[in-house]
Amino acid sequence: MSNYAIQLKYDGTAYHGFQRQLNAVTIQGLLEAAISTLTGADTAVIGCGRTDSGVHALDYTANFRSDTLSVPPDRLPLALNALLPADVVVFAAREVPLDFHAVFSCVSKEYTYKILNTQHADPFLVNRVWHIPRTLNIGAMRDAAAEFTGTHDFAALRCVGTDVKTTVRTVYTFDISENNGIIECKVSADGFLYKMARSFIGTIYYAGIGKISPGDIASILQSRKRSLAGPTAPPQGLYLTGTSYQIADVS
Amino acid sequence: MSNYAIQLKYDGTAYHGFQRQLNAVTIQGLLEAAISTLTGADTAVIGCGRTDSGVHALDYTANFRSDTLSVPPDRLPLALNALLPADVVVFAAREVPLDFHAVFSCVSKEYTYKILNTQHADPFLVNRVWHIPRTLNIGAMRDAAAEFTGTHDFAALRCVGTDVKTTVRTVYTFDISENNGIIECKVSADGFLYKMARSFIGTIYYAGIGKISPGDIASILQSRKRSLAGPTAPPQGLYLTGTSYQIADVS
Repeated sequence: MSNYAIQLKYDGTAYHGFQRQLNAVTIQGLLEAAISTLTGADTAVIGCGRTDSGVHALDYTANFRSDTLSVPPDRLPLALNALLPADVVVFAAREVPLDFHAVFSCVSKEYTYKILNTQHADPFLVNRVWHIPRTLNIGAMRDAAAEFTGTHDFAALRCVGTDVKTTVRTVYTFDISENNGIIECKVSADGFLYKMARSFIGTIYYAGIGKISPGDIASILQSRKRSLAGPTAPPQGLYLTGTSYQIADVS
Repeated sequence: MSNYAIQLKYDGTAYHGFQRQLNAVTIQGLLEAAISTLTGADTAVIGCGRTDSGVHALDYTANFRSDTLSVPPDRLPLALNALLPADVVVFAAREVPLDFHAVFSCVSKEYTYKILNTQHADPFLVNRVWHIPRTLNIGAMRDAAAEFTGTHDFAALRCVGTDVKTTVRTVYTFDISENNGIIECKVSADGFLYKMARSFIGTIYYAGIGKISPGDIASILQSRKRSLAGPTAPPQGLYLTGTSYQIADVS
């Protein structure tokens, strides 16, 4: 038995998220169909996380185990891309140790959220940004983001939906940059609770429009109440932009 | 009667080009429907050129005449965008002299063609670039582009389809740049014959793969034979990126 890791990009607009579902087209479903064609056997794919419907990825890691793969790993991207739709592209593949697991071996993930802060929308960014025409205070957004860095109980910044042992996570970096009307919010952490990234953005947005002040974030975290934080930002601005692994260098 | 110029961007993927057609959705058709709603009367829109099906625009100029427009020109973009689909966005509007005409007053146009020259396609550039995985000689492409600058008879670089008095045009600039695997070919001219921009790109592509040498271009032009030039590049890489006007400063 061998274990393979692949890295992919996808435009999530057309899909019901990563995770396989009955009666819905998902990235996992597409990957499993394509990979099973190349292995000649039903092959399960393990993804590094469950991105929601409409969320994108620029660097998503998945793995699968097989002893019947019909192409060498370096030819796997081209072989899979020939079987996948144009909005899902595998750009790297390699054999990894048998104990590599896309979820459990992952030591950190990075998400980037894109806000288009211009008066008019951009026809080329439909389904790819959150368009906010009103003025945003980027300094306040940056100060709010900084309040999330470090190790905290993030119960107030997640939606209930998955069982987790603890709601404590460590946010390593949270940077806000602006270029040509596009505000990029880049956050890396050892893990993300359900809808945590989008709850971060909704709360930072509240700071940007003056509805909360960055100084309020500590008490929002302490409250552990979802209702005190900002809204869940829409999915189309969110991109999984990186994963880090300790036991196998795949990214 | 007043005359209004508008500037717009559009993703041409979903449309049968700019020009109004029976039984096909076009940019002109959408604009005329939206503008007629705001004028309360059937209002014709004059576009600066007929972009083909699948071709995009980042800065397209159109004009229309009306004496019943219900919103001031500075409010026109927001009012029109509320009536247009998300992949067509008006970003500027102003009143212009009555004799301003989007075609006849235009003194030069600029097109940009985007080639994605990477091994794997990009899911976020589907329908927005020409993906060419093979190695291209960018120096040869640049030399070929330079051969097109100046005043020439471009009969060999157009498709027959519209009546024109002359096939002589002046190409002012033709620049090729490369950044992160995206080759941008930017060409400005006093006018473009039918499919001339895409014929330029197909011919430059032939130089890039060594099928012709830049030195062949002079004799291709001289031959006036379309069959000697390269193929017509696919529409989805082409963007109208600018128009210049003498009698009214609209761009």
